[in-house]
Amino acid sequence: MSDQPVVRPAPISGFSEWLPEVRLVELHWLDRIRATFERYGFASIETPSVESLDVLTAKGETSQEVYTLRRLQADPRDTSDAKLGLHFDLTVPFARYVAQHFNDLVFPFKRYQMQRVWRGERPQEGRFREFTQCDIDVINVDSVPLHFDAELPRIIHEVLTGLGLPPWSLNINNRKILQGFYEGLGIGDPLAVIRIADKLDKIGVAGVSDLLAGAGLSPEQVTACLDLAQIKGSDASVVDEITRLGVKSDLLAEGLDELGFVLESLADLPDGSVVADLSIARGLDYYTGTVYEGKFLDWPNYGSICSGGRYANLAGSFIRRDLPGIGLSIGLTRIFAKLVAEGLLQTGPMTPSQVLVVVPSDERRADALAVAARLRERGYNTEIYHQADKLKKQLKYASQKGIPFVWFPPFEDGRPHEVKDMASGAQTEADPGTWTA
Amino acid sequence: MSDQPVVRPAPISGFSEWLPEVRLVELHWLDRIRATFERYGFASIETPSVESLDVLTAKGETSQEVYTLRRLQADPRDTSDAKLGLHFDLTVPFARYVAQHFNDLVFPFKRYQMQRVWRGERPQEGRFREFTQCDIDVINVDSVPLHFDAELPRIIHEVLTGLGLPPWSLNINNRKILQGFYEGLGIGDPLAVIRIADKLDKIGVAGVSDLLAGAGLSPEQVTACLDLAQIKGSDASVVDEITRLGVKSDLLAEGLDELGFVLESLADLPDGSVVADLSIARGLDYYTGTVYEGKFLDWPNYGSICSGGRYANLAGSFIRRDLPGIGLSIGLTRIFAKLVAEGLLQTGPMTPSQVLVVVPSDERRADALAVAARLRERGYNTEIYHQADKLKKQLKYASQKGIPFVWFPPFEDGRPHEVKDMASGAQTEADPGTWTA
Repeated sequence: MSDQPVVRPAPISGFSEWLPEVRLVELHWLDRIRATFERYGFASIETPSVESLDVLTAKGETSQEVYTLRRLQADPRDTSDAKLGLHFDLTVPFARYVAQHFNDLVFPFKRYQMQRVWRGERPQEGRFREFTQCDIDVINVDSVPLHFDAELPRIIHEVLTGLGLPPWSLNINNRKILQGFYEGLGIGDPLAVIRIADKLDKIGVAGVSDLLAGAGLSPEQVTACLDLAQIKGSDASVVDEITRLGVKSDLLAEGLDELGFVLESLADLPDGSVVADLSIARGLDYYTGTVYEGKFLDWPNYGSICSGGRYANLAGSFIRRDLPGIGLSIGLTRIFAKLVAEGLLQTGPMTPSQVLVVVPSDERRADALAVAARLRERGYNTEIYHQADKLKKQLKYASQKGIPFVWFPPFEDGRPHEVKDMASGAQTEADPGTWTA
Repeated sequence: MSDQPVVRPAPISGFSEWLPEVRLVELHWLDRIRATFERYGFASIETPSVESLDVLTAKGETSQEVYTLRRLQADPRDTSDAKLGLHFDLTVPFARYVAQHFNDLVFPFKRYQMQRVWRGERPQEGRFREFTQCDIDVINVDSVPLHFDAELPRIIHEVLTGLGLPPWSLNINNRKILQGFYEGLGIGDPLAVIRIADKLDKIGVAGVSDLLAGAGLSPEQVTACLDLAQIKGSDASVVDEITRLGVKSDLLAEGLDELGFVLESLADLPDGSVVADLSIARGLDYYTGTVYEGKFLDWPNYGSICSGGRYANLAGSFIRRDLPGIGLSIGLTRIFAKLVAEGLLQTGPMTPSQVLVVVPSDERRADALAVAARLRERGYNTEIYHQADKLKKQLKYASQKGIPFVWFPPFEDGRPHEVKDMASGAQTEADPGTWTA
């Protein structure tokens, strides 16, 4: 017997961990997401979890959430660690990667990146200190065709539909519409209004109205802004609705063309999958065109499940080139943890094993080893219950782990192999060279 | 044109990052490793990157290399972050996981875990501050059959052979032999001698000899220890060689039985793949039986490429149960980075795309979209060159990225689809519904 344990093992708030049967589903999700990204020709990259603080804080955003690193017993005079932090998203590392490897990449560069990121914020529902993001971006020198604004939501639609999520929609807007509309109203600082409008789902119409008035907008301007923010629709008719508000500017017209194009390109998707929602602004300053935000329909107050948009120049802090692009990021942990919490995640076996090979006795062990090797060669995930325990115990192990087949090598010379189908209970003769699951 | 960049993007010492064509190979490696682990019935788990410092330092080892976390702008009175650190291996988190979820797991529990780990040590060849480990372990209540001591090296052999590594061998020893031999010699503190013997490949015979004498061993004892450490061989004859040294103890006899069993069980592997090497001790105190250490034959001074062993009770700091087990860990980054550095890694395309669909003109775009959708349905990774650029530019893109096929939708009504095989240059008519790569 061991000594008294000294440390009680316990979960840490904001960090998730799954049992094997749940992890198996998560792994299946990650495989599907990756396969779909690759199906559209996106290439995998990974970046270190750590960046220099210069890089992480180049844009000034969320810097207070950055976790910095320090060795446990570091010499206090050694400040080298203090210049390193864990990345808080995959966008900043991607921008740094593109700038650093600019001469070795071929453009347009289409990458996906599925990694953990860290944020030192207060854990609460949907907010984690460590979580996995699945990002796709297209980045190019000087320009990126508008067709990608439609292709990215199509990919995300295909990914999330394939995972069997509860009802959700991908909401779309275009920053040019917002900015052009506000300019057309004669508002001097459209970005400030965008930041206020972004709060609509948090503080409601009255709250936004107060903030806009406080920012110096006239009652007519406030009304027009709120009219715009309440427009929503699945097809290009939203463009007419906006036009009917009577506001005019070149930038607005450009934004309406782009939104109309994206909606038309996606018209074949099921109704309600993609929704133009003029209230969406996305707080980040670097978005300059299409913006995306995915939400669960049944939990409107839960954070966005995916988000992204088009940017004119993401890597400007790192390289003297114009590198516009467009990206979308899936909040995998946020989605997955919600389904687990709601009891909506259907789990199966605890192991990838398809076959458990029984060891009848120490004398008959060689047969068990041989049949397992043969089944593995034939592509079946096969484990051996090495201990020659009672049969009942070996079967219980298979049953508890959810292993679908149990293989019995001959219990004496001249007898055949047999396989038990654990679901039906049927036990039949089988040949290791030809048997199929 | 962008503003002057403010931050020069540069690699951080000890953290590796790969171009897409290298990452594609790494991904292929990870897929193979995972598939082999699953083929033998090991289940995936992942643990948070972060553990409480209590957990990380429970065994006292490598604690000075632990990176602790601190929020960039944390309130100095808030010490909650200071209790968290990044894990430095996957063994400690695994032990904590098993203890924490003990009642939800089915034993024997066979898990694999492929994750990044962090160590704040001085970067040098083969040593990284962030690296990926691929671990397999079997853990059970009270006992684990000796057959796993042979199964684990078989799995690792299959994995590493499948990756096409330069020559390497998996060296095996048994701590019971070392401890039993030293006890048989009348040495009072066998563990201290094990720690000295472990330095043989670093400080040589003379160095070890001096240290042993310094530790109070008689000249005869020193000679016997060195005789043992120099025994090496691929088959069970090493057992006879050790026996001929004339030292006797019950523990030594037990260890010899175990080593003999493992070597016999692996006798079908190619000669030299598994080598009994009595100089291997593995520094970690928790090993109690078989120990493993893989090395490149051409670079004997390069760190071990995989390592592990049997332990009597790994989770004793966290739970009052005896949980013996056995594990092996592949140092993926160490292996992969060495092959990259030696120019031995053969890379291919920069993208998973199999087909690039050309857009002949904006008018013929619909055909391009339709054929791409059809090819994706049929399982081909297919991208569209959305911009209707000159054909030469589109072909150059495919060629630079290493995309093997370029698809030409009809350039005018009534014309057929055509596909160009980029390797042979041959261009032929093709039907999107039946074409095969």
